[in-house]
Amino acid sequence: MDIKAYMLSLGEAAKASASVVANASTAQKNSALMSIAKELDSRRDELLRANEKDLQIAKHNDLDAALLDRLALSTKVIDGMIEGLQQVAALADPVGEVSDMAYRPSGIQVGKMRVPLGVIGIIYESRPNVTVEAASLCLKSGNATILRGGSEASHSNLAIAACVASGLQLAGLPAAAVQVVETTDREAVGHLITMEQYVDVIVPRGGKGLIERVSRDATVNVIKHLDGNCHVYVHDDAELKMACEITVNAKTQRYGTCNTAESLLVAESLAKEFLTAVTPLLAKHRLDLRVCQSTKLILESLDTSGLSISLAAEDDWYEEYLAPVLSIKVVKNLGQAIAHINHYSSQHTETIISNNHDAAMQFIRAVDSSSVMVNASTRFADGFEYGLGAEIGISTDKIHARGPVGLEGLTSQKYIVLGKGQIRV
Amino acid sequence: MDIKAYMLSLGEAAKASASVVANASTAQKNSALMSIAKELDSRRDELLRANEKDLQIAKHNDLDAALLDRLALSTKVIDGMIEGLQQVAALADPVGEVSDMAYRPSGIQVGKMRVPLGVIGIIYESRPNVTVEAASLCLKSGNATILRGGSEASHSNLAIAACVASGLQLAGLPAAAVQVVETTDREAVGHLITMEQYVDVIVPRGGKGLIERVSRDATVNVIKHLDGNCHVYVHDDAELKMACEITVNAKTQRYGTCNTAESLLVAESLAKEFLTAVTPLLAKHRLDLRVCQSTKLILESLDTSGLSISLAAEDDWYEEYLAPVLSIKVVKNLGQAIAHINHYSSQHTETIISNNHDAAMQFIRAVDSSSVMVNASTRFADGFEYGLGAEIGISTDKIHARGPVGLEGLTSQKYIVLGKGQIRV
Repeated sequence: MDIKAYMLSLGEAAKASASVVANASTAQKNSALMSIAKELDSRRDELLRANEKDLQIAKHNDLDAALLDRLALSTKVIDGMIEGLQQVAALADPVGEVSDMAYRPSGIQVGKMRVPLGVIGIIYESRPNVTVEAASLCLKSGNATILRGGSEASHSNLAIAACVASGLQLAGLPAAAVQVVETTDREAVGHLITMEQYVDVIVPRGGKGLIERVSRDATVNVIKHLDGNCHVYVHDDAELKMACEITVNAKTQRYGTCNTAESLLVAESLAKEFLTAVTPLLAKHRLDLRVCQSTKLILESLDTSGLSISLAAEDDWYEEYLAPVLSIKVVKNLGQAIAHINHYSSQHTETIISNNHDAAMQFIRAVDSSSVMVNASTRFADGFEYGLGAEIGISTDKIHARGPVGLEGLTSQKYIVLGKGQIRV
Repeated sequence: MDIKAYMLSLGEAAKASASVVANASTAQKNSALMSIAKELDSRRDELLRANEKDLQIAKHNDLDAALLDRLALSTKVIDGMIEGLQQVAALADPVGEVSDMAYRPSGIQVGKMRVPLGVIGIIYESRPNVTVEAASLCLKSGNATILRGGSEASHSNLAIAACVASGLQLAGLPAAAVQVVETTDREAVGHLITMEQYVDVIVPRGGKGLIERVSRDATVNVIKHLDGNCHVYVHDDAELKMACEITVNAKTQRYGTCNTAESLLVAESLAKEFLTAVTPLLAKHRLDLRVCQSTKLILESLDTSGLSISLAAEDDWYEEYLAPVLSIKVVKNLGQAIAHINHYSSQHTETIISNNHDAAMQFIRAVDSSSVMVNASTRFADGFEYGLGAEIGISTDKIHARGPVGLEGLTSQKYIVLGKGQIRV
């Protein structure tokens, strides 16, 4: 197989169908989404059989339990995919939305119209339900999509792709509006991320290695999310109970998510009081704490049974643990907290716990992260919680889309001008 | 001189000053802009002497008249720079603007805050007034800037840079917030566009060669504008007089601007009538017409003295002439016009002349360009005409900024969340 030629043919077909999808009516796009849902529903057995093949190969290759878990389709996972399609169909269509129309002194009326980006390439790892999720968001936002899933899920992805293709055709849309890369050769990714003539944006979803590789090698624009080294800062004027609840929730509600807190900053003025209150709560979760010298001194005076405590190394302040590990540092004041975060954070999500209005507003203005919060758990940094309806990922970049990326992040705006024959003088 | 080390030192200084400028108050930024204006005003002799050096070298090197014209500073050009600074000071500060705050079912309030991009690198050619223009827009939008001007203008740029540095310091802002690259070695550009650790966006301003080189080699994000192959489409339901006026204005008001029309599409149903009306008007401007076979047949029946007429080659439909040259094609219908534009256009600006509402709305939705107009001259595609107050360039990309880029295009939005102690359940 000539992989380059194959990828170029996918690109050409995607580009050709992009203008059809861009101009499809809202009703037509919704009809396609609902048809895909029906196809998935009526082909459940087929999907489960295909998935079983992937699972057997994965087991044969001794892949770890977490990966097998992400890979597995079940009736419940299929139900979730169907529900997701219904939810995306119910979202408002962003395409064609006109805003900011205003008359100018010349008499022309100038505004903006929201338009699709064109062709979006999604590169993801083993979860096959991402195939449906990504396809539905790209379709609703009027884009054509090329999906490249993990090789472990290739049978599942192709079975899902067949449902997507049928659904599109039932709604009178070109099947090439959503294409799944059929080869598992890694060379395919290299072509996908450099076909600027066909692909407008790449969204990599998966582990750090994948995202770093894609960012480094892509010539196409990338909407990416690297680490989530999120901070909770307990300010001098924090309410103690709230600070404890948010710290515990942000760190322990789930360990593996990107909006989980990895580092705790504590104001010197209440460090002793706060650490005394929070330590037994953290001990319940048997956390591994990596702490600064000041924190260590305070902890030595407390009952820390259940906790593992060690001095933090410089690298700890940068780390996204994705595990029951938390770094803790005592800071002198707001300025030092902001400086620490802007230096060590991955610019994902940070929260300040404080009842001081001025400190909260300063924190919000000066912290350079995609989500900045006051008195709320970092775990809220999420497209659903923010009301975007769905999320294709969380961007830690500043260009184009920042923070949770929903339908709007998959679109752009062009200027529109309405005149009555005006000419420039 | 170790150019790499030098550029890295500029990057480091820019990054360090970026957070100071990002958090500077509106009053402080405006005070800096006004101080720079005063510095320019009081150092006019110095500026003119530095410029004279550049002009002498340029004449010695036999540079062409157009370049000498762009290079020359005069009292009037300096007045323009001062006025530009005053205008930017008068614009609303985009930084910190909060929008879309809404309560979510969880009780958190979610919205967006506009924030600077960080460090912006501007690469431009010989016009020294761009130094002030770019510096003022980046400063007002809270960004640090590294400016790399054309080597022909190096004495002028350094003299201007000294005024900018004094103005910044008088307002208590770091001089490194605006740095001018002092070496004229081309290697410096290569470093500037690949220092991702320090530079957030590159804006190249200048000829196609420069922009292509920067886009190809940059690893930093680029906000760019390539060609302006703009179209006027005279639809079946066009008002003849309006169609003539807009065609003439869009093509002939200025030949060298990117929003000048380069190609005219004419509906078959009124081709004869319209070409008969417009030909004498185009003849006054002694245009060189590159036409399709149908147009040629019609023109053969008319008095075309003053015009040069030849059959268009395939390349003509892609061409940005920037000259008294116009390509003309007769199209069967709206669909063919849209397809032609989406294929050959550089996605800058297109206009339809029509009194048919449905056709106008279809054109606006389906044409994939950064500005799409109805019954207005393409020459209106401009930051000032659109009410942006100023313009750093016009983007023909879809990612981040599209069309004229003003202060808003030099910023991004982060999410902000205000809670009362909410945790995720």
